[in-house]
Amino acid sequence: MDKRAPARSGLSRRSMLAGAAAGVIVPAVAAAASSAPASAAPGITRQITMYAEKIPGTDLYGYGLEPGKPTIPGPLLEMYEGDTLEIELVNNTDQRLSIHPHGVNYDTASDGAPFNNSFNNPGETRTYIWRSRTQYQASNGFWMPGSAGYWHYHDHALGGDHGTAGLLGGLYGGLIVRKRGDLLPSKQYTVVFLDMMVNHKIAPETPIFEANLGERVEWICIGHGNLPHTFHLHAHRWADTRTGMLNGDNDRSHVIDNKNLDPGASFGFQVIAGEGVGPGAWMYHCHVQLHSDQGMAGVFLVRNADGSMPPGAQEAIDRFKGHGHGGHSAHSGAVAADPNGRPLPPSIPPGGAQKHPNAGGGPLDTTGGAAAKQAPPPPPAPPAPHDHGGHAGH
Amino acid sequence: MDKRAPARSGLSRRSMLAGAAAGVIVPAVAAAASSAPASAAPGITRQITMYAEKIPGTDLYGYGLEPGKPTIPGPLLEMYEGDTLEIELVNNTDQRLSIHPHGVNYDTASDGAPFNNSFNNPGETRTYIWRSRTQYQASNGFWMPGSAGYWHYHDHALGGDHGTAGLLGGLYGGLIVRKRGDLLPSKQYTVVFLDMMVNHKIAPETPIFEANLGERVEWICIGHGNLPHTFHLHAHRWADTRTGMLNGDNDRSHVIDNKNLDPGASFGFQVIAGEGVGPGAWMYHCHVQLHSDQGMAGVFLVRNADGSMPPGAQEAIDRFKGHGHGGHSAHSGAVAADPNGRPLPPSIPPGGAQKHPNAGGGPLDTTGGAAAKQAPPPPPAPPAPHDHGGHAGH
Amino acid sequence: MDKRAPARSGLSRRSMLAGAAAGVIVPAVAAAASSAPASAAPGITRQITMYAEKIPGTDLYGYGLEPGKPTIPGPLLEMYEGDTLEIELVNNTDQRLSIHPHGVNYDTASDGAPFNNSFNNPGETRTYIWRSRTQYQASNGFWMPGSAGYWHYHDHALGGDHGTAGLLGGLYGGLIVRKRGDLLPSKQYTVVFLDMMVNHKIAPETPIFEANLGERVEWICIGHGNLPHTFHLHAHRWADTRTGMLNGDNDRSHVIDNKNLDPGASFGFQVIAGEGVGPGAWMYHCHVQLHSDQGMAGVFLVRNADGSMPPGAQEAIDRFKGHGHGGHSAHSGAVAADPNGRPLPPSIPPGGAQKHPNAGGGPLDTTGGAAAKQAPPPPPAPPAPHDHGGHAGH
Repeated sequence: MDKRAPARSGLSRRSMLAGAAAGVIVPAVAAAASSAPASAAPGITRQITMYAEKIPGTDLYGYGLEPGKPTIPGPLLEMYEGDTLEIELVNNTDQRLSIHPHGVNYDTASDGAPFNNSFNNPGETRTYIWRSRTQYQASNGFWMPGSAGYWHYHDHALGGDHGTAGLLGGLYGGLIVRKRGDLLPSKQYTVVFLDMMVNHKIAPETPIFEANLGERVEWICIGHGNLPHTFHLHAHRWADTRTGMLNGDNDRSHVIDNKNLDPGASFGFQVIAGEGVGPGAWMYHCHVQLHSDQGMAGVFLVRNADGSMPPGAQEAIDRFKGHGHGGHSAHSGAVAADPNGRPLPPSIPPGGAQKHPNAGGGPLDTTGGAAAKQAPPPPPAPPAPHDHGGHAGH
Repeated sequence: MDKRAPARSGLSRRSMLAGAAAGVIVPAVAAAASSAPASAAPGITRQITMYAEKIPGTDLYGYGLEPGKPTIPGPLLEMYEGDTLEIELVNNTDQRLSIHPHGVNYDTASDGAPFNNSFNNPGETRTYIWRSRTQYQASNGFWMPGSAGYWHYHDHALGGDHGTAGLLGGLYGGLIVRKRGDLLPSKQYTVVFLDMMVNHKIAPETPIFEANLGERVEWICIGHGNLPHTFHLHAHRWADTRTGMLNGDNDRSHVIDNKNLDPGASFGFQVIAGEGVGPGAWMYHCHVQLHSDQGMAGVFLVRNADGSMPPGAQEAIDRFKGHGHGGHSAHSGAVAADPNGRPLPPSIPPGGAQKHPNAGGGPLDTTGGAAAKQAPPPPPAPPAPHDHGGHAGH
Repeated sequence: MDKRAPARSGLSRRSMLAGAAAGVIVPAVAAAASSAPASAAPGITRQITMYAEKIPGTDLYGYGLEPGKPTIPGPLLEMYEGDTLEIELVNNTDQRLSIHPHGVNYDTASDGAPFNNSFNNPGETRTYIWRSRTQYQASNGFWMPGSAGYWHYHDHALGGDHGTAGLLGGLYGGLIVRKRGDLLPSKQYTVVFLDMMVNHKIAPETPIFEANLGERVEWICIGHGNLPHTFHLHAHRWADTRTGMLNGDNDRSHVIDNKNLDPGASFGFQVIAGEGVGPGAWMYHCHVQLHSDQGMAGVFLVRNADGSMPPGAQEAIDRFKGHGHGGHSAHSGAVAADPNGRPLPPSIPPGGAQKHPNAGGGPLDTTGGAAAKQAPPPPPAPPAPHDHGGHAGH
């Protein structure tokens, strides 16, 4: 029932996909009855092309939705439960590599593991198919989980059986599978903790994520590499649930502002920027002290509602920018060190921040208040996978 | 008071216990009313004998349900909430050792800690009593938790106050406390991450767990030792709840395929083998890159529904088996290294995989579908603790 | 706007605050209707003064509620959702320092981060304002989380941008934000795992927390520093929820007795001391084996209901006290080592244990039973922040 007649619509003009070479395929046949088995969950199928490429002037790699535009992290991909994503991966490098997702369904040919002979040789193009499913109730009242979640994808083949070299090279990105009815954000930030880096940067080169006061901001947090980390965001918190929100007044889920972000883990949540705390420059960082001291810290800049800079914010950013150049009193010598021994030139195209393509469709809830008890609105139009790697804050 | 008059009944013939020397005691009196206080929760008492022994040809140890049959991990023990397990532990080694459980109730004499003078001297036999309880509602509407969960047991006395040498030696195993009504699986796999090993093995000697497409498979995951780990399973996922399933359509628990498995932690979940992804060889591994590269990886082999090998699976396993012998491109030299400096001969009897003894009683739900909304079936017959250490896949 | 007209009332006589110089402000206006927006949640405002001071005879620091009485950990602070806490921090040291909370709302001036120019210079007094909020239902049925939780506070400025030196020096403590209706405990223990220490101690100097059989005991667990840890408590368990309890019979939250306690993390739970297991000396420890072996272990002493010592408990404590002096068979040489290279003289004033000031108001539920299904009682009187650092077990 979630499937609609085919048409090209519902895609934001802002989406890279709408204008990209990749076609978008929607089902020609209406959805089966609600008793349909999980494997035939209703949904649309989209085809996209991704390019794995060397980042010029570095020995790093990135995924991109257009040739010549690799980013670290790669583009944030999104789908609704029940949807299928067909990814034509073009390997424009001279290395064996692949794309391996978390959270979705794939057969062994799309595993992305060399083990299953699922990878792209240098120069090769290969299609990986990711399916998602809705939850369903099994006998005995149990509900088998669906695919909805904040997930991620990464190389699983470059330089070894587990993609270690690919990850260290920058081949990773975020993947969101939404349940219909989930709230959509205005802004989205992907934060990847990998060894001593945030999105392959160390402070003060780490991302400054921006939003205006009251905007609904979605964070997608991903852990990789060899070290344990904990993600902390100042002045904001979230429920430790799939959505970052609670189920109701009686939900006793943990509410947190610090969460383990260890290798292979991912989670996401939405906050209302500056809610209850006001605009300003707020720090996000790994709470492992040595890691934050050595540069795993960045800034969540909450501007005034009209987009202007709040008092003190620029000064805070200036102090932050001086972090690695003498302003960092305890460990300033260490800040510039790349623990992986590779250059981190400013030419690395940053991924991680974007405006949600559905954000322009209408006012998003940012306040609760009088309208809070209304019935849920109808399902939003399906989000499209889209590039968010071009520039931070665009 | 939890012990009732002895009688022998209710055990599957498949259970090792039925034929073992250990007696089994079931209640002669029907369960008390539902208002019974927690400390008098209805339940049966079972008596088993476990043997802690040296593994011949190694300097390792294992627990077993029969003399001369120690395994690593030890036998998977199971009980229902309210049940009591009386374990007569025979120490056939020349070392002080004990058995310490997580999740159940015990008095100080059964703590297993030298601190409480609770251990077996070399050659000594000692009884440890583990009780479990159902949850109960306290005043103010709060529910105090019962014992149900995926737990574990381990030595707490060999070579020190915390059993560190016993754990490194192999003295650990899984313990499940079920709530009545919990779904029973067809197959059960115990996976222990301890330092750089899986069930005291490193790839390619790590377990290959097998199931047929559509079988309900239960994973019991346990962390030990000194290092942080993350458990990842390819192509399958679970809810981050006690059962791995959701509570209902509105349950916003995390759905995950990667979870921290740090020392002392344990969790479990059930998946339908190959559901939505098909049969094949699927990798499970620690997602800490260095750990997987050095051998913390194994195979979940999902055969076709009729038990035959799916296309490509044997080739994948062959590649995996070549992992430590040149097929592991990045780190092949390191794969054979035991980080603990002890020999890992192929003669170690593997524990970890078993067919559930209740599995033969009738078709388990594997699909959801038409029967999904029926009323819950009556409580299953109580599971018995049983040996699953003899051979993988038996 | 959360501040109301001042008045003095509603405080337990047992609270340190009642007799302290710090004033206490409670609302003069009754709470607004239940439809009040989050930002105007009803609540009281309290003003306290905290002192950051050097601990004599050491190079450590502590927070305290009276001058000359710094403790490690600092005083446990409490508030109800909707309350505001105004902390006048007096810096009696010769170092730059601050106080940074987790879980509550604050504007950039109260961030405690040098980045936001929010710190106390040596000798300076500065006020930090922490607000809390209740959860509220946004459109679409989602509930944005409130502030309720087991949180913590710590220095964020001493010796660097992230307070690393302040944390290593002892500047940290617990913070509880309760939801109205939450059960109040009889005793409270704060346990901080920081590098290889528990509350800046290593065994056998680690805290012995005491309670009588049947008392409701609240644990506040906090992780800091650079290392991953797992907190394990013998013979007791809790639900992995905000309260440590379940939501109802159908709640499938994890029940655990071992949980990650990594840097920046915090959680809390309540247990009934000795419930189902009896009185005795029970160990709590980090389950990372090397950590417990080197001294991250302590004792939860559950006395008989009348306060007398149960059989064997003193002997267990004596064994524990011999831990670092030859009784620790595997690693005794290492136990006395402070991994941070600083002296840990017995003169450090311990924080961490206290009797809850509301505990004397009437019998707390410890059994469930007949009264279990009654309607929830009216909200308890608001708890007050109070010193619990003077002596363990007072």
